Amino acid sequence: MIELKIIKDIAVPSPSKIVMLIIDGLGGLPVPESGKTELEEANKTHLDKLAKEGICGLMEPIGPGITPGSGAGHLALFGYDPLVFTLGRGVLEALGIDFELKDTDIAARGNFCTVDDAGVIVDRRAGRLSTEENSRLCSLLAEIRLKDTQLFVLPVKEHRFLVVFRGDGLAAEISDTDPQRTGVTPNFSLALTPEAKHTAHLANEFVDMAAQVLSRHHPANMILFRGFSKLPQFPSMKEVFKLTPAAIVDYPMYKGLAKLLGMEILPLCGDIKDALKTLAEHFTNYDFFYIHVKKTDTAGEDGDFKRKVQFIEEIDEALPDLLRLEPEVVIITGDHSTPAVLRGHSWHPVPFLLYSRWCRPDEVKEFTESACVFGGLGRFPAVEVMPLAMANALKLTKFGA
Amino acid sequence: MIELKIIKDIAVPSPSKIVMLIIDGLGGLPVPESGKTELEEANKTHLDKLAKEGICGLMEPIGPGITPGSGAGHLALFGYDPLVFTLGRGVLEALGIDFELKDTDIAARGNFCTVDDAGVIVDRRAGRLSTEENSRLCSLLAEIRLKDTQLFVLPVKEHRFLVVFRGDGLAAEISDTDPQRTGVTPNFSLALTPEAKHTAHLANEFVDMAAQVLSRHHPANMILFRGFSKLPQFPSMKEVFKLTPAAIVDYPMYKGLAKLLGMEILPLCGDIKDALKTLAEHFTNYDFFYIHVKKTDTAGEDGDFKRKVQFIEEIDEALPDLLRLEPEVVIITGDHSTPAVLRGHSWHPVPFLLYSRWCRPDEVKEFTESACVFGGLGRFPAVEVMPLAMANALKLTKFGA
Repeated sequence: MIELKIIKDIAVPSPSKIVMLIIDGLGGLPVPESGKTELEEANKTHLDKLAKEGICGLMEPIGPGITPGSGAGHLALFGYDPLVFTLGRGVLEALGIDFELKDTDIAARGNFCTVDDAGVIVDRRAGRLSTEENSRLCSLLAEIRLKDTQLFVLPVKEHRFLVVFRGDGLAAEISDTDPQRTGVTPNFSLALTPEAKHTAHLANEFVDMAAQVLSRHHPANMILFRGFSKLPQFPSMKEVFKLTPAAIVDYPMYKGLAKLLGMEILPLCGDIKDALKTLAEHFTNYDFFYIHVKKTDTAGEDGDFKRKVQFIEEIDEALPDLLRLEPEVVIITGDHSTPAVLRGHSWHPVPFLLYSRWCRPDEVKEFTESACVFGGLGRFPAVEVMPLAMANALKLTKFGA
Repeated sequence: MIELKIIKDIAVPSPSKIVMLIIDGLGGLPVPESGKTELEEANKTHLDKLAKEGICGLMEPIGPGITPGSGAGHLALFGYDPLVFTLGRGVLEALGIDFELKDTDIAARGNFCTVDDAGVIVDRRAGRLSTEENSRLCSLLAEIRLKDTQLFVLPVKEHRFLVVFRGDGLAAEISDTDPQRTGVTPNFSLALTPEAKHTAHLANEFVDMAAQVLSRHHPANMILFRGFSKLPQFPSMKEVFKLTPAAIVDYPMYKGLAKLLGMEILPLCGDIKDALKTLAEHFTNYDFFYIHVKKTDTAGEDGDFKRKVQFIEEIDEALPDLLRLEPEVVIITGDHSTPAVLRGHSWHPVPFLLYSRWCRPDEVKEFTESACVFGGLGRFPAVEVMPLAMANALKLTKFGA
């Protein structure tokens, strides 16, 4: 693998533009009825044409057999090896709701959940309570006081919230209280290093007090924590790739991730058409654009094959608005597969297409899983995407004498 | 990646012979007129036949998106990971002109350049002055005396020369004086470690004196330095692969590189026909032959598609002279791509072909970029070439108990 420091040495700024369109959960699996995947089923003239003119392949977000979480797949696409650049769930939630974390803060992702009289978890999401109810409960929890430690409790969406502990000598190396299954009681948080004892103690104290506060608020009568973490110090895309990057994205976590890598967040509210309008408006001001489409993933997670197909067709229809801008490099792929038949993220490699004037076209004539098997890029790791994008935009100089 | 120490453990000497024909800058891109690359355009019966009988693939010299410099691509082909085995430009120039570097010497690549009255660089190559003029100026510079340090100033070709500092306590960790662009003054060399202060001082002192000596020799009225470096200690091919290797090559740098890895340099003066004559004459004395053809790269760099095609056809025509010797393993590839349409080295993977009695042939029927996509080797890194060559020559024993 080519490390970021190598790329940093050979990257040069240039006016050429890279557009990376990430269709969340793009990859799929055939359904028994037609034997076709979502992409194979979709009517998508523009994507097929671009695949024909470009170079294709199958991209492994993390590695063969590995199903990516929401953050890891994206990090890899942006050139940051997710096995090296790890992100806590707490930090991701904080970034996503625009909470300004300090370097010494400990953030955790919280779930409101339902426990029975014996304290056993019966619903890990408290019936997916409304975001309004979530806000109300968070204000109650925010009243909790811990000695020498400032607390922030903020609603995210449905049953999810963020807790931030701010104080001296806090450490993130403590274990989750969320056992990630029902039928058991929540775990105590354990210190994973000697330095983290105090933080584990604080977390457990907070959970105790929260249980008291929430006892009369069934179904949200308990909380679960996971992903205690500190803000990591990643080199920015500006620093590594010499890019001026922008993100067109509306889902909190992806926004947070983009910010962490130094991308400017552009306003987006709406569908792919709106995203491409934003792209057109800001096209001259940046040289790297990350556009994120979430709806395909949600459809896949809902097991809704047809809806996923429709969203792909919607993107295809809008594609000319992107191509009209004539970016030097266009990349279209997903951050992972979400086959409707599996109703969740999966480990299957993701169809990938790169178009540039210099891309050495292959024989792939349509943008599908089965066609991409024969692409010129073969099956390749996601961390190779950025070096390829940079090379095709003529933004990398020679390596070595 | 399989490290050299693993190969060293399982390599065994044997009489079988490996011939590696490196067609510099072999890979290409399609031209708009025909939609064909240089290889696709060329008439090359023998190469196609060998591709059909052998196993093919697309080789990545350094990594996806990375454009290799002249040395790095070759190191990878010989099994030395260029991210681990790095070579300074100064050392490469020294090796190329047969200058016997001592372990403690510091070598630098020099350029004669033109500066205006304000000292601003206006031509980094002094109008590519003649090698004769270069020699004359080097003799003048060789008169410069530095305290306690011996100096060697030797012409290379056109505007390029070599300077070697010989003395006690010299260190290579000093920065280039060549800013690699015009419109600015040359840089001072800076010590990158405390130990290198003295060397940086010497380099700057030399540049000062050289500027005085050259002041009346416009356009070559200044010098630029880059790639200060010491001779690295690489394990030889004999040591790692148990081979007795020879190189048939006439371009200085490749000769130097081959020497560094312990190859014997065989006399070559002429074209591929002459190279294969040399091969035939020395065929019994060695078991590994590296043959280097430079002209394809030069044609590519000149943007001369047609000439590159002709050189490929010339090689094809001569190929029977190689095959007649019946080496156990024949490898034909390049050290990188040099598409005529890009007029320079590029990042595109290089068509690769290996023929041996034991190679498990694939379905590739012609030696082209597009056909090699479907080769049995897929897209693979150059550092895998030597293990493959060794295996096919039955020169590797089992790994592990």
